[in-house]
Amino acid sequence: MSSKLTVAAAQLAPVFLDRDATVDKACRTMREAGAAGARLVAFPETFIPGYPYWSLVLDRFSTGRTFDRKLFAEAVEIPSPATKALCAAAKAARLYAVVGLNERDGGTLYNTQLVLGPEGEIIGRRRKLVPTSHERMVWGRGDGRDLQVWPTPLGRLGALICYEHSNALYRYALQSQGEQIHVANWPGGVPWISPIIDAAIRHYAFEAQAFVVNATAVLTDEIIAALGSGGSVDKLAPGGGYSAIVGPLGQFLAGPEPREEKLLLAELDFERIADAKLIVDSAGHYARPDVVRLVLNRHPHAVLEFEGEAT
Amino acid sequence: MSSKLTVAAAQLAPVFLDRDATVDKACRTMREAGAAGARLVAFPETFIPGYPYWSLVLDRFSTGRTFDRKLFAEAVEIPSPATKALCAAAKAARLYAVVGLNERDGGTLYNTQLVLGPEGEIIGRRRKLVPTSHERMVWGRGDGRDLQVWPTPLGRLGALICYEHSNALYRYALQSQGEQIHVANWPGGVPWISPIIDAAIRHYAFEAQAFVVNATAVLTDEIIAALGSGGSVDKLAPGGGYSAIVGPLGQFLAGPEPREEKLLLAELDFERIADAKLIVDSAGHYARPDVVRLVLNRHPHAVLEFEGEAT
Amino acid sequence: MSSKLTVAAAQLAPVFLDRDATVDKACRTMREAGAAGARLVAFPETFIPGYPYWSLVLDRFSTGRTFDRKLFAEAVEIPSPATKALCAAAKAARLYAVVGLNERDGGTLYNTQLVLGPEGEIIGRRRKLVPTSHERMVWGRGDGRDLQVWPTPLGRLGALICYEHSNALYRYALQSQGEQIHVANWPGGVPWISPIIDAAIRHYAFEAQAFVVNATAVLTDEIIAALGSGGSVDKLAPGGGYSAIVGPLGQFLAGPEPREEKLLLAELDFERIADAKLIVDSAGHYARPDVVRLVLNRHPHAVLEFEGEAT
Amino acid sequence: MSSKLTVAAAQLAPVFLDRDATVDKACRTMREAGAAGARLVAFPETFIPGYPYWSLVLDRFSTGRTFDRKLFAEAVEIPSPATKALCAAAKAARLYAVVGLNERDGGTLYNTQLVLGPEGEIIGRRRKLVPTSHERMVWGRGDGRDLQVWPTPLGRLGALICYEHSNALYRYALQSQGEQIHVANWPGGVPWISPIIDAAIRHYAFEAQAFVVNATAVLTDEIIAALGSGGSVDKLAPGGGYSAIVGPLGQFLAGPEPREEKLLLAELDFERIADAKLIVDSAGHYARPDVVRLVLNRHPHAVLEFEGEAT
Amino acid sequence: MSSKLTVAAAQLAPVFLDRDATVDKACRTMREAGAAGARLVAFPETFIPGYPYWSLVLDRFSTGRTFDRKLFAEAVEIPSPATKALCAAAKAARLYAVVGLNERDGGTLYNTQLVLGPEGEIIGRRRKLVPTSHERMVWGRGDGRDLQVWPTPLGRLGALICYEHSNALYRYALQSQGEQIHVANWPGGVPWISPIIDAAIRHYAFEAQAFVVNATAVLTDEIIAALGSGGSVDKLAPGGGYSAIVGPLGQFLAGPEPREEKLLLAELDFERIADAKLIVDSAGHYARPDVVRLVLNRHPHAVLEFEGEAT
Amino acid sequence: MSSKLTVAAAQLAPVFLDRDATVDKACRTMREAGAAGARLVAFPETFIPGYPYWSLVLDRFSTGRTFDRKLFAEAVEIPSPATKALCAAAKAARLYAVVGLNERDGGTLYNTQLVLGPEGEIIGRRRKLVPTSHERMVWGRGDGRDLQVWPTPLGRLGALICYEHSNALYRYALQSQGEQIHVANWPGGVPWISPIIDAAIRHYAFEAQAFVVNATAVLTDEIIAALGSGGSVDKLAPGGGYSAIVGPLGQFLAGPEPREEKLLLAELDFERIADAKLIVDSAGHYARPDVVRLVLNRHPHAVLEFEGEAT
Repeated sequence: MSSKLTVAAAQLAPVFLDRDATVDKACRTMREAGAAGARLVAFPETFIPGYPYWSLVLDRFSTGRTFDRKLFAEAVEIPSPATKALCAAAKAARLYAVVGLNERDGGTLYNTQLVLGPEGEIIGRRRKLVPTSHERMVWGRGDGRDLQVWPTPLGRLGALICYEHSNALYRYALQSQGEQIHVANWPGGVPWISPIIDAAIRHYAFEAQAFVVNATAVLTDEIIAALGSGGSVDKLAPGGGYSAIVGPLGQFLAGPEPREEKLLLAELDFERIADAKLIVDSAGHYARPDVVRLVLNRHPHAVLEFEGEAT
Repeated sequence: MSSKLTVAAAQLAPVFLDRDATVDKACRTMREAGAAGARLVAFPETFIPGYPYWSLVLDRFSTGRTFDRKLFAEAVEIPSPATKALCAAAKAARLYAVVGLNERDGGTLYNTQLVLGPEGEIIGRRRKLVPTSHERMVWGRGDGRDLQVWPTPLGRLGALICYEHSNALYRYALQSQGEQIHVANWPGGVPWISPIIDAAIRHYAFEAQAFVVNATAVLTDEIIAALGSGGSVDKLAPGGGYSAIVGPLGQFLAGPEPREEKLLLAELDFERIADAKLIVDSAGHYARPDVVRLVLNRHPHAVLEFEGEAT
Repeated sequence: MSSKLTVAAAQLAPVFLDRDATVDKACRTMREAGAAGARLVAFPETFIPGYPYWSLVLDRFSTGRTFDRKLFAEAVEIPSPATKALCAAAKAARLYAVVGLNERDGGTLYNTQLVLGPEGEIIGRRRKLVPTSHERMVWGRGDGRDLQVWPTPLGRLGALICYEHSNALYRYALQSQGEQIHVANWPGGVPWISPIIDAAIRHYAFEAQAFVVNATAVLTDEIIAALGSGGSVDKLAPGGGYSAIVGPLGQFLAGPEPREEKLLLAELDFERIADAKLIVDSAGHYARPDVVRLVLNRHPHAVLEFEGEAT
Repeated sequence: MSSKLTVAAAQLAPVFLDRDATVDKACRTMREAGAAGARLVAFPETFIPGYPYWSLVLDRFSTGRTFDRKLFAEAVEIPSPATKALCAAAKAARLYAVVGLNERDGGTLYNTQLVLGPEGEIIGRRRKLVPTSHERMVWGRGDGRDLQVWPTPLGRLGALICYEHSNALYRYALQSQGEQIHVANWPGGVPWISPIIDAAIRHYAFEAQAFVVNATAVLTDEIIAALGSGGSVDKLAPGGGYSAIVGPLGQFLAGPEPREEKLLLAELDFERIADAKLIVDSAGHYARPDVVRLVLNRHPHAVLEFEGEAT
Repeated sequence: MSSKLTVAAAQLAPVFLDRDATVDKACRTMREAGAAGARLVAFPETFIPGYPYWSLVLDRFSTGRTFDRKLFAEAVEIPSPATKALCAAAKAARLYAVVGLNERDGGTLYNTQLVLGPEGEIIGRRRKLVPTSHERMVWGRGDGRDLQVWPTPLGRLGALICYEHSNALYRYALQSQGEQIHVANWPGGVPWISPIIDAAIRHYAFEAQAFVVNATAVLTDEIIAALGSGGSVDKLAPGGGYSAIVGPLGQFLAGPEPREEKLLLAELDFERIADAKLIVDSAGHYARPDVVRLVLNRHPHAVLEFEGEAT
Repeated sequence: MSSKLTVAAAQLAPVFLDRDATVDKACRTMREAGAAGARLVAFPETFIPGYPYWSLVLDRFSTGRTFDRKLFAEAVEIPSPATKALCAAAKAARLYAVVGLNERDGGTLYNTQLVLGPEGEIIGRRRKLVPTSHERMVWGRGDGRDLQVWPTPLGRLGALICYEHSNALYRYALQSQGEQIHVANWPGGVPWISPIIDAAIRHYAFEAQAFVVNATAVLTDEIIAALGSGGSVDKLAPGGGYSAIVGPLGQFLAGPEPREEKLLLAELDFERIADAKLIVDSAGHYARPDVVRLVLNRHPHAVLEFEGEAT
């Protein structure tokens, strides 16, 4: 791992429900981050092509035939031309990127974090394990393969999405794999969760003895207008961001930024992880595996199991 | 997959127990379907050279030496001049075809669906897994290779025969492979099963979130006459068809047609699959692989198992 | 099992979001069914205290603080005075009852079918495995213990809820346990699903070679009024029932009834199961366990596993 | 094993389609055999309550609602009062008995050999693996548990039914388990198969180096009359038996008896097995397991596999 | 559980290293809390007879013979007159109390939370699992019995101490047992940890969907003076408290109070737990036991294991 | 094993908190021992890069940011260039070596004995099971894999560190594995423990019927100076060694040496083990496993347990 490292959190609004234009925006942001010296950039939850706010503020009966279909059409298959464009941009900018997107696989959408490397390769992909509340109308569920830490030359990299941070076992699954840089994603624009994000990301850094790169979107007037005027649309307000970069004792290194589209940058000093671990190493000297241990089932959740080869 | 697509279900009577003449009739129908814009056409169960009605209405003792022998002689080997003629017709018509036929392999007959492609190639072949009732006197049994979905440029294509639709595991084996177009075959002319076909094909479309192209034969006065006058022949009546094309929510797009020989045509709009899957994706977000999963044994059912390679 | 047997499907509207009043209504209906000679009565999905229509027609943002809280408060714990009252009514009426209800366990609600016996005992309890679409905002998920058939003196009894009928594996899990009487529940009042119910219950009877007792609720003007005027409430219309009793070949023995609150009664003749199985026994002579088999994981889904005993 | 031993083959006609009366007849025959010094008695194939001749000589269409239903109703469940009566008779007569019967399990019938011991216990049960021709309309199929040899004080006992004797692997499965006394069953009354029986049982004795106790039924005028007058009933003729007892070199020790109901008796001298094996021990010195070996899968063919315990 | 409930967090300094005087102070505080309507009161970490600040600011070489010996002498055995006095006070005040104390068991001290009930009974006792840093010179380690939630009429009660809150598995062990009121204890007076306490207790409430009653001590000039003048004593400053009561969404209901000795009071409305769980029930609908589960070993950590019973 | 064998105990001071220089010193000492005919050499506890005396004589508050960080940085990862250099030296000197070092694994340090072989290979590694007093601020804890005896051509080799010798079960775990040469390590320089070492190593030899090679460090003026002037530094004095080699009856074969850096050498005569065991074989004829037995859990203490393979 590097001893010092510049990372970025991109607080952005998508070009709402337009996959290709949002991919372009992500690529431009990678270039900007690379030029600023960042070796890692995190994008908001389901940045491409945007978070399904309609499932929160409009009724199910009326949204299925318009917004849900649109999202299904504009979602990202892996691989596809969209992921190829993202990979090429990561390569050009020579950085790692964690890109939130709506993934389409067969007839099911997933809330996915795509992890790209500086050679333009796909490092990994993880799907949110349990969509929250209204999101359950939109996305399927990941499995044990989605709790994985990737070793990189920058350090050991992990990621979770939004309220996944509420579940101690999801978090410890990453922390016990030696995670050093944690990417957190949230949608942005959901009014009541800023104080929750604050506690969640600062406590994560503390309990993991790791850095947290937290990227949220911001809600814009354009997105609100696109949702129309029914239901609770009028309860939405622009802004609602909380992007930030946090150190191992829970201190802010950049942000939090509540409102603007902005590329947050911070230098991570890995000596700070060592400092923290001298007191608490949560998967090391502060653990009690003789008392409590976590079991992680990494078997793929397959509905069909083959015996024998196809002919 | 295509977004829109015209398909056909051919409700026909065979030239009973005459392989070559029935092959000719199938080839003519392919031309007709191609001319009508269809890119896929489905034929009835064991269309070539006809369904063994005698095993239902005549006694075993008396039929073996006449009808069974005749069927054995007029059955189709794969490959053979008969299948070459069918392939050539599919190529000329530039379409996919699923042709029901009596297959002869060694000393055993099978109830087989032969799948042809627009290049004149054989895409696949599947044998009915469990013949029903009186059919067990006529046909052998398929194995796990016969529960297969074929990827095609038109979409993912699968097929089942008649009462195979009664077994949830046979159906889910196809559905879990992402089937989009399902071809169903029934004999036609068996009086009591029309309401069963109705529920089976509409429910199949719903549970698979797929299109169903259902082709049945119709019984004719000529065939009834050919069976002679004994047993229960007098309980048979002409007609007994139920060919239809069904959409992913179980709605009829063409048919059902009870009586006439007819080429049913319908345009499939694949957006309708996406609509259905937003609510239920039976092998995706609506599945519980952690609770129930299907094991499909694809090992060939071979009586002789080799160890080592032949020299 | 009895050779003949009278059963009932109770098509009813709840006293909306009023647990105790709806329990009373259920108890009265048990008395009525018992007096009519029924030995089994099925109630609609989540009859107590009603189906969460608001999650379909109102937006999430505005419903959580009113309707969701109300449902949480009026849901049924097992056991509780509410279930004791139901048990007492079943005992008084000397019948079996399958009662759909919203179950509360800790902080999670479940869509549950409670099965009561004529001694006033709780025979079993099953929770819907995968809530559908908007329902995912309301209910948690069952596990492998919820795919169970109960042996009773009336015959082997199983049950599924609503779109669970779309999943072949859930169905076969019951059918392969020898189910003879299947209770199906649907909410009623959801406009587009009557044709789906029609195909689902008739096909279930056919593929299971069993009787289906299908109970749906009906939507009333009172319930619609209680939902207020926002969102898509105006798209709801009274009625929307499809209660029915179906025989093993898919034929209606009572119903379907689209609109009225009504107690449907039918006499089941178990000889009809034998007739059907002579042709197709889907877990017997028509199965191919050498090719496809179902694996059912009945381990409880527990987040916490203890080693050692509490002290 | 005894060095010498008296055994019996009971050539009998059933009280057609009357389970209880045929059970009585079997019990009487056991008493008679025991009184004659026999320590083992074999009964014909599906003796209780008779072989389904209708499926051979009448048409399917017309038989299902009469003969098939009657057979379903008169078939034997294991255990049941019928098997208890048989066990009591075996105990009273102090002998082993192999009783052919139609077994009913759930919705499927099986062609079963029930093996009883002199303590009135059930030693084993085996189901015919592949019904033959028209029989497939009547019976399901056994699995690997049905190829089993039972060790008894009389010697190692095995059994097969009718055309199962045509399959070398079924036979070798028993022979390779050291079978010494083989019980063969056939229906009797099917005109063309007497020469086949003759070759089958004599060759079996030779290839197994074992004794064969072969019991067939005989067809009676009463049974023919019960079948009515349609189809090919007139092709049936009374008689058609071929019961016999055969020694290890293929020589008849009793019978064959073509026509009469009769209890055949013979004394088996086990020295004759040793004589034969000096030359050919087909699962011993004459085998080449390094070159060919038989794999027998004895896992039950279960359509449903559980993980975890029921609660 | 009660729907509404008043609870208290007692921010206090001990009568340093004087067990009996500190017990008196605890008893007086219970009376005060009871009089204020509180039904539960939480005391600081190792309140009786105080936190071993010397192990942090003085060297090991010089403290063992003075401070450590003093603490050993003034620690609390369970049961003992000290615990009896505490129990009597809880009974007089009719409340539950969680009292932090230095427990002595044989030759080892433990950092213990003693839980008392309003009948004057000891509800439970838990020992810190992993002392932190310098504390490891003072206290032993608990075992799996120390991760326990106690059912009480007030709700399900659990507790953790200080940096135990950094370990996800310790926390989830309580949360998965349905904890509703969580008592957190910290020493107070350790300058750098106030921001950590802030994130830890607010995030705990959020991830547990529970109330957190957080009691810290405050450091006083008297205690600092008692430590003498060596080492880093001069780096200590009076105050350093952060007692607070937090609601299920992470909001403060009372406090945080940084400096004063004070009895914080708040009314808990259990409807707020229901509200939170409608969105996230971390051991219910938001868990994935099929993917990650926690194993808790509750076997006592005994150095000696008996086989057989003593006689 | 050899009947006679020369071994060495290296009493040395580290180049304090300088990993690479101390590694060099260890390598030079291996060469020296090899040249003197030794086939095994033991180094002091945490020789590389020194024992954390500051945790004993300075206060926690002031040491964390200086000494602890320095130790973290200068600790040894396994493998790493430091261990490669040590391996190469063992190979060059053709001897076995047991090297005490501070091991870093993730965020936790361990007090480790690294065992090297004459082919330059790592034979084993063991971590101290329970750090003592002030050491608990520095090191984590080993598990059951750390109680292991290694078979070597020299004899069966085991090792323990410092106060681990106080625990009878740790010792018996090695002795019951047939240990013949025991390496003991202590820090040296801690004034009060020389008499403890004396009793511990002589008794070990007796109870194990084995040789003990005991290596301690010596404290130097340079190290004392490096600790500065605060706390109890002035209570430290140079020297404090007690290296020695002991025979199976507790007799000194070399040393003890209290003060100088020195390489102690002795010839071991394995006949002396046999002599001792004639009287007491503590894991053999003198044991009563029917009455008392030791259970050693060698499962790794893993906080995370995987099911399934990573993909």
